[in-house]
Amino acid sequence: MTLRVRDLGEFALIDRLLAVLPYAVRGSDSVFGAGDDCAWWQSAAGTTVVTSDALVEGVHFRLEWTDWRSLGHKMIAVNLSDLASMGCAPRVAIVTLALTGDELVADLEDLYRGAGALAEIYGVVIAGGDIVRTSGPIMFSVTAIGEQPAGQSPMQRSLAVPGDIVLVSGTLGASAAGLHLLQHPLPNATTAGLLIAAHTRPAPRVSLGQALIAAGVRCCMDLSDGLAGDLPKILKASAVGATIRTDSIPVLPAVRAMFRDTWLDLAVHGGEDYELLCTVANGMAEDVIMAAAAVGATLTPIGEITAASGLRFVDSNDQPVDVTPSAWDHFAGT
Amino acid sequence: MTLRVRDLGEFALIDRLLAVLPYAVRGSDSVFGAGDDCAWWQSAAGTTVVTSDALVEGVHFRLEWTDWRSLGHKMIAVNLSDLASMGCAPRVAIVTLALTGDELVADLEDLYRGAGALAEIYGVVIAGGDIVRTSGPIMFSVTAIGEQPAGQSPMQRSLAVPGDIVLVSGTLGASAAGLHLLQHPLPNATTAGLLIAAHTRPAPRVSLGQALIAAGVRCCMDLSDGLAGDLPKILKASAVGATIRTDSIPVLPAVRAMFRDTWLDLAVHGGEDYELLCTVANGMAEDVIMAAAAVGATLTPIGEITAASGLRFVDSNDQPVDVTPSAWDHFAGT
Repeated sequence: MTLRVRDLGEFALIDRLLAVLPYAVRGSDSVFGAGDDCAWWQSAAGTTVVTSDALVEGVHFRLEWTDWRSLGHKMIAVNLSDLASMGCAPRVAIVTLALTGDELVADLEDLYRGAGALAEIYGVVIAGGDIVRTSGPIMFSVTAIGEQPAGQSPMQRSLAVPGDIVLVSGTLGASAAGLHLLQHPLPNATTAGLLIAAHTRPAPRVSLGQALIAAGVRCCMDLSDGLAGDLPKILKASAVGATIRTDSIPVLPAVRAMFRDTWLDLAVHGGEDYELLCTVANGMAEDVIMAAAAVGATLTPIGEITAASGLRFVDSNDQPVDVTPSAWDHFAGT
Repeated sequence: MTLRVRDLGEFALIDRLLAVLPYAVRGSDSVFGAGDDCAWWQSAAGTTVVTSDALVEGVHFRLEWTDWRSLGHKMIAVNLSDLASMGCAPRVAIVTLALTGDELVADLEDLYRGAGALAEIYGVVIAGGDIVRTSGPIMFSVTAIGEQPAGQSPMQRSLAVPGDIVLVSGTLGASAAGLHLLQHPLPNATTAGLLIAAHTRPAPRVSLGQALIAAGVRCCMDLSDGLAGDLPKILKASAVGATIRTDSIPVLPAVRAMFRDTWLDLAVHGGEDYELLCTVANGMAEDVIMAAAAVGATLTPIGEITAASGLRFVDSNDQPVDVTPSAWDHFAGT
């Protein structure tokens, strides 16, 4: 009766809101895919892919922990990561800034310098967008658009098949470790800068996404909410399960060394790694790993897709490891 | 040295931010147009057009003056209006909601019902988008995407030519009059509902935009910041001037009657009319007016484009009328 957003959570809310839309407005899967990292539709010339992500002060970033240039990098990076997860080439980013008016113009110029530097690397044009006034926390909302040639379908969450190998790029947990170090600075931590940069300036896996789709990978997503939060989205969309070997999860030695008791938790729940998670038929895994290496990316096999539903984590002796499957929810526990 | 956003204003800020971007990132006019109501680019298959507009509580709307369903209508309408101004068919809208968590789910469902009802009329698919948490005012950011067939260039602000007739659709000032009535309710005002609806549920001129481009119109924009604020954007982009006859500006009889001393001010400075403003060669004006009538829209000639720069308002005796050219600026006077 007086159900509030905080009672429902982000993901259930999205489901409820889409449910009140007229059927035609929700679109059909044949021309339009929602529920992936991006919305997309196909026309004669190819596929247009769109994604939108916002950063809110105090929720996604704190100005005492980041500089404006890194923020500019990150607001573009998180959107390019979504496009990369579909395997498509980014073309345009539209920026909307909600500001109080009290911000220093020089800081916002730094924001745009950081955004522009990353956009230039991937040939993305930044369009003007919109600037609106807010009395509350400042917010940067970016919509990025990419394109794929005709005849190529975007990689999707719903295409995992039992027997597939689960692969993850790079390493997991570095971003969460960096966030922890920002919250609880350690003296004499020589590798802290590396981890903090993983959090403040994540690298979108743009080239890797395009290499994966070219190598025939059909199921992929990017890791923004942690492995234990995001992999269930693939499992649900594909109606399958998975077994993940925790010992196989790639984690930086520095993270294991600095977080001896919590590295696994950081790796599976930490979030904001912006690595790619994909599943491929057993017979293609080696070729896909080679294709990733050709663009400088490491892919690590961490488990298999199973016909039985559910996500199980096991150790090197196949014994269950207690990891709670949970996604980062903006309204959880509030 | 400590220049703040409020010192600079919205439009100067956008210019400064775009100026720090690398040249390649800013794009070139041949493949990409910024500075219009939308960003757009052309490929072999046609033109993709993108626009983004945000509504912030307390700035763009107050919950005591509007209902959630109207808000949902308006957040879609203002974006479809931008697409209409380029003459293109809307395809997809991506919604980002910044919420505190305290909102009633039923209210947000009403928001989506309002959005869905308008989207359905124009065949627009609403994609999930993103929901983020904010501690401040709630905000709805919508990005809308449209497409045009190959061989057709979007209508642009920069294509006005001296001698062109300036035409405006519908009537001006109704939205501002409606806002005034929300702020200062009048008893016994039988037409108040009509004016309030013009403010809370503006109609995007989607069919008109497509009719105009099909009729050969090349220069168009939508009126969100008032005639005196928006027309100078066409004049600047086209390096021309204009003379507007205030007696020709179409204003509803109810607005003239209820606002005897201020109707002209409402019509030229009020904003949020979301009517289309276009310029056409003298010889085509009649055909364009007929094409508009065929989709149920009224176009009214209100003046001419001049080679001499500047915007002049004149009365029926060609005497100057004192109207300050000014655009709505989110940071003005703060």
